[in-house]
Amino acid sequence: MTADCPACSGAWPRADTLVTRLSLSSAYLNEDQFFPGWTFLVLRRHATELYGLTAAERAALIEEVSAVARALAGVFGAVKMNYELLGNQVAHVHWHIVPRLAGDPSPRLPVWTVPHEPRRLPEPEFAERIAAIRAALGR
Amino acid sequence: MTADCPACSGAWPRADTLVTRLSLSSAYLNEDQFFPGWTFLVLRRHATELYGLTAAERAALIEEVSAVARALAGVFGAVKMNYELLGNQVAHVHWHIVPRLAGDPSPRLPVWTVPHEPRRLPEPEFAERIAAIRAALGR
Repeated sequence: MTADCPACSGAWPRADTLVTRLSLSSAYLNEDQFFPGWTFLVLRRHATELYGLTAAERAALIEEVSAVARALAGVFGAVKMNYELLGNQVAHVHWHIVPRLAGDPSPRLPVWTVPHEPRRLPEPEFAERIAAIRAALGR
Repeated sequence: MTADCPACSGAWPRADTLVTRLSLSSAYLNEDQFFPGWTFLVLRRHATELYGLTAAERAALIEEVSAVARALAGVFGAVKMNYELLGNQVAHVHWHIVPRLAGDPSPRLPVWTVPHEPRRLPEPEFAERIAAIRAALGR
């Protein structure tokens, strides 16, 4: 834990977007649902790079990434899943796991190339998505 | 192997950009070196999603991702590494492993947001980069 890290201090992601806690990481639904199902998977301990983890942590973490991706693919009917560990703004290991759907505005390109206003859902719909992902994860 | 998959048929990446073959995957240096060190790590067998692999394959693959990232970070002096498994164009498991350097044109944003002409290096310089990464990987 480092005091100035938003993921360690709890400043990001917002606690009320939590989908579920897995062994090493916690899944949160992105408040911006322009790309339906975009989920953050955040390692609970502080590390900045994959090679800052132990091999056992990497193996466990990639299982969690894979399980969340499979759940999202099922819930949202993904054509393809995207998995990204960047950390350019929050240098704390976290994944962007993004279902790319049949109606995608730019199916051949990364989501970052699609400028858009954040799409915030009405609270009940947001909660429904969280519940559906949670159920698909068997939680 | 699927006949119409560019990664399976050998159409992509170009054979002469090979850095090294690891146990499950092969590393290739991106011909476009606008972002210095951008490397593709391509699973040799065909699969489209992480959850199409066995847990043992995922564990071995993430070790290879991590080792390549560590090598690239050392060779290029990365401030941060980016790791992306997308497959929107080539739906065959491959990673974009990209060192983000101190002089990065847009350090807080994903590389995909930086429009640029591909930067092709003179052959000796390209070969030198490959040799340096190979050496950092102990190959």
